[in-house]
Amino acid sequence: MLGLGLMGGSLALALRALADAPAVVGWSPSASEAATAHRRGALTGVVDDPERAAEGADLVVLATPLDAACELVGTVAGALGPGATLTDVVSLKAPLVDAVRRAGLTARWVGSHPMCGGERSGFEAARADLYRDASVWVVDDGAGSAHRARVEGLWKALGARPESIEAADHDARMARVSHLPQLTSNALALLLEDAGLLPDDLGPGGRDMTRLAGSSPTVWADLLAHAPADLPVALRDLADRLRSLADQVEAGDLDALGASMARSCAWRQRT
Amino acid sequence: MLGLGLMGGSLALALRALADAPAVVGWSPSASEAATAHRRGALTGVVDDPERAAEGADLVVLATPLDAACELVGTVAGALGPGATLTDVVSLKAPLVDAVRRAGLTARWVGSHPMCGGERSGFEAARADLYRDASVWVVDDGAGSAHRARVEGLWKALGARPESIEAADHDARMARVSHLPQLTSNALALLLEDAGLLPDDLGPGGRDMTRLAGSSPTVWADLLAHAPADLPVALRDLADRLRSLADQVEAGDLDALGASMARSCAWRQRT
Repeated sequence: MLGLGLMGGSLALALRALADAPAVVGWSPSASEAATAHRRGALTGVVDDPERAAEGADLVVLATPLDAACELVGTVAGALGPGATLTDVVSLKAPLVDAVRRAGLTARWVGSHPMCGGERSGFEAARADLYRDASVWVVDDGAGSAHRARVEGLWKALGARPESIEAADHDARMARVSHLPQLTSNALALLLEDAGLLPDDLGPGGRDMTRLAGSSPTVWADLLAHAPADLPVALRDLADRLRSLADQVEAGDLDALGASMARSCAWRQRT
Repeated sequence: MLGLGLMGGSLALALRALADAPAVVGWSPSASEAATAHRRGALTGVVDDPERAAEGADLVVLATPLDAACELVGTVAGALGPGATLTDVVSLKAPLVDAVRRAGLTARWVGSHPMCGGERSGFEAARADLYRDASVWVVDDGAGSAHRARVEGLWKALGARPESIEAADHDARMARVSHLPQLTSNALALLLEDAGLLPDDLGPGGRDMTRLAGSSPTVWADLLAHAPADLPVALRDLADRLRSLADQVEAGDLDALGASMARSCAWRQRT
């Protein structure tokens, strides 16, 4: 397990909680975080450098922010055993595909993107049930079927629901389901701050809408650096919709407003 | 209690759960909802028309949507006893102030706006602890101090935190803390629907951001009909911020994006 924050720490805890728990050797850029994870039973061993964590492992998981994960692909390439599988839990896949191709690991890489998380980060926020019932996008670039089966089996063992998708489709989808809500929450929070309002001035709905604004800027920094081309398109689309709503409110066009609310209410109740 | 949906039903349940529970006589435009509330112990009596619910009451609560509440002010005016206090739980106050002035009830009306609720509506969604720890804005138009004390006492008895505000200030604030998040959630939901996405495609952050999209269009219809002038201003302000973010993403201006995220993250952690 390379990286022991919210995602890697939770994965290590979940693996160690299995009835047939595998050995989990961990590395973190923060030695104290690795020591904490070890002490809390998330790891069976701690190592000082990422290559050593990869040596002898059946499955190597990159659970760092995006740029670090792309770099680690090259770092661990030489240390991977012949049957070892490489996965990651990064929320954009096109940059990983590039890094995996450069490292010559396409046959053994099967990327994962679990659709869960939280605005808190670090091992302190990790919990063994983070992945239970989560959807997990699984992306590969021509990996062998044994590697795909291993990664899908991992998620199923933890109660998550793996589903395959193309890397480009995945990233375009993420622009709308992840990046767009994130930046909308940031923009709303800044508007409220500029109006002299505090989180305590909000009701539960407003708190829901600004919860993502508390997400870690560090985690998002390289996700935004590699933002899919669909993100600015989606942001402008939402801006246009808000302007239309402003026009409708001003014109007292209650039919249009009511129709929008009825349609989005019906959508929200679909599963 | 006039109206026995989420707000009125929860208030009736909470009052009846007090150690020194008062009698609570209820009326609802839906006779079956009133019967349900009575059967579930929220009411000590049910009446067929709103005037009869107001007769003999120390405190009359209007817990209907905005337009109905404005109309009920006139309906109950003649039935209020000399020492009776009139309050409401409507989330805009300027239209209520107008109705109360027309009915000659300014001395006895002390409006309330509890900052709680939920996207579900009707008595089925009501619960006795809805108001616990909620902020409640209290607005009056020159009411007597005994009436103000009675309404503040009501909310304190239920564990809520009443705070006074001017009607106009209240409504301008609501444009940003309530209407704006609501319509933003609707717009985001419609964008996702138009992109062929479903609620199940979202992670927890995206689900937070679209939860309000499930709010009742009926409840919002007359709130939007009386929308404060600040609402279109706030909607366009948010649209401008989203366009700026789109430009920054496209330009790869990570410093600007990081600064926005850091500022909104710090704001979200303030209390």
